[in-house]
Amino acid sequence: MVPTLAFACAAVLASFSSVDALWPLPTGLSVGSTALRLSQSFDITVDVQGAPDDLNAAVNRTKSQLWNDKLERLVVGRGSVDADAISNAAELTSLTISLADGATVRSISEEAIDALESRDDSYTLSIPETGSGAVLKANSTLGLFRGLTTFSQLFYYYNDNVYTIEAPIDITDKPAYPYRGLMLDTSRNYFPVEDLERTLDAMSWVKINNFHWHVVDSQSFPLQIPGFTDLAEKGAYSSSMVYTPDDVSHLVSYAAERGIDVIVEMDTPGHTAIVSEAHPEYVACAGSAPWASSANEPPAGQLRFTEPAVVNFTADVFTALSKMFPSKLLSTGGDELNINCYDQDEVTQGTLNKTGKTLEQALDSFTQATHSALAQAGKTPIVWEEMVLDHNVTLSNETVIMVWISSDNVAAVAKKGFKIVHSASDYFYLDCGGGGWVGSSPSTNSWCDPFKTWQKSYTFDPTANLTAEESQLILGGQHLLWTEQSGPENLDPTVWPRAASSAELFWSGPALTNVSSALPRLHDVAYRMRQRGVKAISLQPLWCALRPGACDVSA
Amino acid sequence: MVPTLAFACAAVLASFSSVDALWPLPTGLSVGSTALRLSQSFDITVDVQGAPDDLNAAVNRTKSQLWNDKLERLVVGRGSVDADAISNAAELTSLTISLADGATVRSISEEAIDALESRDDSYTLSIPETGSGAVLKANSTLGLFRGLTTFSQLFYYYNDNVYTIEAPIDITDKPAYPYRGLMLDTSRNYFPVEDLERTLDAMSWVKINNFHWHVVDSQSFPLQIPGFTDLAEKGAYSSSMVYTPDDVSHLVSYAAERGIDVIVEMDTPGHTAIVSEAHPEYVACAGSAPWASSANEPPAGQLRFTEPAVVNFTADVFTALSKMFPSKLLSTGGDELNINCYDQDEVTQGTLNKTGKTLEQALDSFTQATHSALAQAGKTPIVWEEMVLDHNVTLSNETVIMVWISSDNVAAVAKKGFKIVHSASDYFYLDCGGGGWVGSSPSTNSWCDPFKTWQKSYTFDPTANLTAEESQLILGGQHLLWTEQSGPENLDPTVWPRAASSAELFWSGPALTNVSSALPRLHDVAYRMRQRGVKAISLQPLWCALRPGACDVSA
Repeated sequence: MVPTLAFACAAVLASFSSVDALWPLPTGLSVGSTALRLSQSFDITVDVQGAPDDLNAAVNRTKSQLWNDKLERLVVGRGSVDADAISNAAELTSLTISLADGATVRSISEEAIDALESRDDSYTLSIPETGSGAVLKANSTLGLFRGLTTFSQLFYYYNDNVYTIEAPIDITDKPAYPYRGLMLDTSRNYFPVEDLERTLDAMSWVKINNFHWHVVDSQSFPLQIPGFTDLAEKGAYSSSMVYTPDDVSHLVSYAAERGIDVIVEMDTPGHTAIVSEAHPEYVACAGSAPWASSANEPPAGQLRFTEPAVVNFTADVFTALSKMFPSKLLSTGGDELNINCYDQDEVTQGTLNKTGKTLEQALDSFTQATHSALAQAGKTPIVWEEMVLDHNVTLSNETVIMVWISSDNVAAVAKKGFKIVHSASDYFYLDCGGGGWVGSSPSTNSWCDPFKTWQKSYTFDPTANLTAEESQLILGGQHLLWTEQSGPENLDPTVWPRAASSAELFWSGPALTNVSSALPRLHDVAYRMRQRGVKAISLQPLWCALRPGACDVSA
Repeated sequence: MVPTLAFACAAVLASFSSVDALWPLPTGLSVGSTALRLSQSFDITVDVQGAPDDLNAAVNRTKSQLWNDKLERLVVGRGSVDADAISNAAELTSLTISLADGATVRSISEEAIDALESRDDSYTLSIPETGSGAVLKANSTLGLFRGLTTFSQLFYYYNDNVYTIEAPIDITDKPAYPYRGLMLDTSRNYFPVEDLERTLDAMSWVKINNFHWHVVDSQSFPLQIPGFTDLAEKGAYSSSMVYTPDDVSHLVSYAAERGIDVIVEMDTPGHTAIVSEAHPEYVACAGSAPWASSANEPPAGQLRFTEPAVVNFTADVFTALSKMFPSKLLSTGGDELNINCYDQDEVTQGTLNKTGKTLEQALDSFTQATHSALAQAGKTPIVWEEMVLDHNVTLSNETVIMVWISSDNVAAVAKKGFKIVHSASDYFYLDCGGGGWVGSSPSTNSWCDPFKTWQKSYTFDPTANLTAEESQLILGGQHLLWTEQSGPENLDPTVWPRAASSAELFWSGPALTNVSSALPRLHDVAYRMRQRGVKAISLQPLWCALRPGACDVSA
């Protein structure tokens, strides 16, 4: 049975006050109201010839979550209210997972890093109310992984029982947009590998499929790049605050096994002050005072892109990065270029005078050269919006643009025909609202005040002001965490559950998302994350979480 | 040697870019520039006849911190820059602590809960540069405890060495204000005992001496009160989310051993919806819809203070609370009374008609009766500002008023001659700026936007708009955390290091605090807290923390 979208919506709304920890909302969903509990002998059967190791590992993680989440339903009385239903429930003894006839068996890890638009996350899941076996099918192991993730969210715990009260359940699911992401900056402050692992885990639980890793910036260079190890040696905060090639390889694998592509960003030519520690001659304005005349935040320092040595260096670093990160995508940055810095830089001005080029022409040459290195390595570049809107550099049609300054700028980028990942500060910046951090002025607020609530992100319209044709350019979107005021201490509370709001928006699509009815499910996401060791915050008093709708404005 | 304040200031400013993890800033301080390291045989000698157990325990904690903090100095190069100085340093073999001649030996725990204005936190600490013994003296074990706290902040770690580079150090210290506090709400969301312990630890490290425990509110009643156990039985979120009398006794002792008085608040007559679970007849408007017509936030519900049974019940609960909490202070609340609730409540209106009293007269009777129960138990009441500014209830002169709605209201309260603890939302509310939490509107911001930065709190003027005489009424102030959007997951990051800013303001006094030079020390506080297991957040990128002043606006 494949329920229609309309039917799915009705079913969801009907169950508003009862259940559904499902997040993101499946695009096709029907649920009943019969209790069903896992048999003590419940098992997941992998009916896949030559099943890859990472699929078997995902199955084992799913089984572990089913028994260990121990999340009681968020209702007054918690699990006890289901005691009667549980005692009369049929037992589910198995979930069988299999690929569609004729599907090629590849690992989740391989499929997770396919070209973005060719990844197949779709799956169907059927759980009969009778207790006869549940069935999960997909065209890909990636799809099976998504289905396992959904399956693990369906069950609650009470008194040694793991159960649902919504059987039969039928799901036909696939994402509305190919890109659901999370960006993390590991330069302003450093995050140990275990924090990144935990973040990747939580991302996978809400079907986020891209980790945009803004790994280096002006403040520190924590990435050991083979052939360029002096950058981290001189630019990391300490010898223990680095990501070694082994760390990267581990994290890339860890992510891919969980359906996540790791997209690295080395922001250029701005945001590169720290490169001056190893190569002072490559960087303009490093150490300049006052920094505010040469940069948006301290410290100042930008690559001298007019210099052939710098162009070669940057292209070579990108080539080296391309070998470390198997993703088809790689971000070269391109935001917040401070022109005054170059106007004041004697080396830059000397070269411009000598070559007769304008700064913009030199930037175009730099971009073409560095993007050409990427193309040779088989990568598609990502850049921030300024490269399209403020500068007139030559970019391939395939280049992906991240719009960050304002969602108002999306239409202008779309008009130029580029693909877009929504990353707008006015909706998706997780760091806004924490107060100013530059200096000690008592009256400085966050530059992107106010705090972006989950409701704000969740109600973003991905195709606002776009024609139908332009709307096709939208690849999806993501939440972003810049870490001037974050570190391991507040990573989880800052990111979760808020970042789940864009995960659902771009998986389920705006037609299915409804801010008025989403909150109970989002509470469930947050409480389930905590059971799994991620410190997602309380969005409301528990009193409200237990009483859907009771804390609404009009309740 | 007792340095003057002027001398102390000069010394501090001179050392701006070098050291000083001291927080709060001692009111008298002189430092040198000689390195001194702890001898491997370093010990703290307690030269106190019949030294109380909690003093010996504090000494042991201090020794543990000295060796285990392992905080390297926050400078470029970290501890390694001090390697030469350390290798040539004299060794400090002992700290001797003693009481002034003729002082009565009492425990820290006893002294910590003395009447607020009679507590003596003062101490002197002298650390010669020669390595001959350091000396800590005080009039009280409470003062010795403060001095030990200071001593533990003076030392950094590098390569198995524990050292200072600022010997000789002479400190003469005492607080500017008797009340430095932190308020935590454990009703909107529950916090396990271990979270409260950790919070008390961190409070003690910055010499906060009052824990204002807003233990119950409308959402849940987690406190087991002997004789009134039905309140928690029916009103706690779950049987595991309660504070038993043993928990309270443990926390009160834990706090007192650390120089902290635990002041309990049971907010009445408003903020009591949850009492209706055990006593529906005592509560007006419980379960009323829409809640917004009867309360500032869901759920609605206020004590029917017109009813003699409710007056007796409330007075008896306060009497029982008085036995659980040895503090001389106890807060009876009194904020946000919703008059419409009573206007619509048939029981209340019936009694008013019968007795011929106005609502305000009944409120006065209720307050007098409940405060009389406190007085009989030897307690001084604390109330929120509305009891003075919006209602005309009879209050004893000793009553302490907490001004929360706006710091602009302080002067009006002072004009009425009451003692005041600064608690203003516009400076000290830790929960502001996290977005709206009522309902799902995408445009709702925090009611007290924006986020209150440490700089904002730190630059608060405790005697603004007050005459010299009125200024004498200021007992001090505190940060406050209401927990609609907080729980154990974000407790530390929300509170620390921000709450340290009021701790210093009210210990060191506004004459000594300087927002331009405080940041490096506050970084130190935050990094040291992390070494001790408290998840204080990064206020800036580590790049800035290592380079004092470099991230100032004008740098």
